Amino acid sequence: MINVVKIGGEIIDNKKLLIYSLKNFSKLDGSKILVHGGGKIADIFSKKMGYNNNIINGRRITDKTTLDIVVMTYSGLLNKRIVSKLQSLGLNSIGFSGADGNIVKSYKRPIKDIDYGYVGNLNINSINTDLIKYMFKIGIIPVLSPITHDGNGNLLNTNADTIASYLSISLSKEYKVILSYFFNKIGVLNHLNDEKSYYSKIEENLFKKLKNKNIINKGMIPKLENAFYALKNGVYKVTISHPNYLNNPTKKTIICL
Amino acid sequence: MINVVKIGGEIIDNKKLLIYSLKNFSKLDGSKILVHGGGKIADIFSKKMGYNNNIINGRRITDKTTLDIVVMTYSGLLNKRIVSKLQSLGLNSIGFSGADGNIVKSYKRPIKDIDYGYVGNLNINSINTDLIKYMFKIGIIPVLSPITHDGNGNLLNTNADTIASYLSISLSKEYKVILSYFFNKIGVLNHLNDEKSYYSKIEENLFKKLKNKNIINKGMIPKLENAFYALKNGVYKVTISHPNYLNNPTKKTIICL
Repeated sequence: MINVVKIGGEIIDNKKLLIYSLKNFSKLDGSKILVHGGGKIADIFSKKMGYNNNIINGRRITDKTTLDIVVMTYSGLLNKRIVSKLQSLGLNSIGFSGADGNIVKSYKRPIKDIDYGYVGNLNINSINTDLIKYMFKIGIIPVLSPITHDGNGNLLNTNADTIASYLSISLSKEYKVILSYFFNKIGVLNHLNDEKSYYSKIEENLFKKLKNKNIINKGMIPKLENAFYALKNGVYKVTISHPNYLNNPTKKTIICL
Repeated sequence: MINVVKIGGEIIDNKKLLIYSLKNFSKLDGSKILVHGGGKIADIFSKKMGYNNNIINGRRITDKTTLDIVVMTYSGLLNKRIVSKLQSLGLNSIGFSGADGNIVKSYKRPIKDIDYGYVGNLNINSINTDLIKYMFKIGIIPVLSPITHDGNGNLLNTNADTIASYLSISLSKEYKVILSYFFNKIGVLNHLNDEKSYYSKIEENLFKKLKNKNIINKGMIPKLENAFYALKNGVYKVTISHPNYLNNPTKKTIICL
């Protein structure tokens, strides 16, 4: 059994919640991997440097300067803070960008209507499971930041939910994999401000309905798409939940086919 | 035989020279490790963010903001750029801060006359050679950034020359180790602007004389102290040279006892 845990930006931006998440993560039995997103820190540094993010149709464009800033903040500051904190909790971990050990290889997103810039897409061969298996063998916990590489010397900004999904799928060929998406809500909510309105499970038909009604929108759409994609491709279980309830079997949204 | 190669800030600040150094590094036979310094990039980002470096008596103080900036730039931007470039040269490498895999554990420099802030000192037990040996075994090249950790969740800024020296000493218990310091000169020069004036070798007595005459000064003093310390503690060979002459046995300064 392998646990793949993804912590989102809302958790990373909240120091207390981040520490709490890492403590709960540290209590999980067996082999495990942490994948983290970015949060607001890249935007904060961009603004401090007087740099305006390039946003087209509401989507962020990763130009050269933005790439440098996300590499610094995600693979530098956040990744190393998380690793040093895990070390202090007694968990020997190594922080990886996708370039390290060629652990996640991507290709630059093709230009259709919009050129997203230095953004990496994944495919089914992107994950180097050999290195991950070796880490498991020597008792080291991989901590993946959402930066990948194309193998030609270029780093690329990549969605952390997607990395967690593809990673889980690749590992599920050899292991039973549980993929947990952590964010700052108890689960997928029907009413954004009512924690009690969470769905204990979401099937694909319900997802489509909620999307049509705009109850599931913005970043929750690709998160759920990644969740369904993982389930359809061999991952044993996928949940979306708050780190408080990691070990509570009911207080979470379970994704079902 | 293990090659430990340290590339300094002068090389990192010069893109062409950096690529050239990595290419020459890639040609070295056998197991090898790259240690890199910081260069001017942290200062550039500090200035862009309107943050003035805290300098007392000519020495940089690593306060909390400076620590964040050096972690971002050294372990994030520079380390990942180097790793992705090595990958494109066919060298499977993993970038490490000292926190990753607990590879370099340090302790906060004690306050004497000056509080240097979040700066880490090393001791003889700082280097986790077990992990490095694993990396050699699976053919992965470690790339170390000059950020370490204290084991209690704190990252610390650490001199890259010192990391290279202690790393070489620790490995020399089991291997024959060659430590090469790369910078942008052919070797230690008698006249700063005359490349022909390099010393082909420097013994400790000569070092003392050159230091007294102020021919060796500033950052070259700790570099040479680290070089002598390595030699005295089991490292087979220590040289200071330009990456152009990596494989030229004469165009470099060899450190001798």
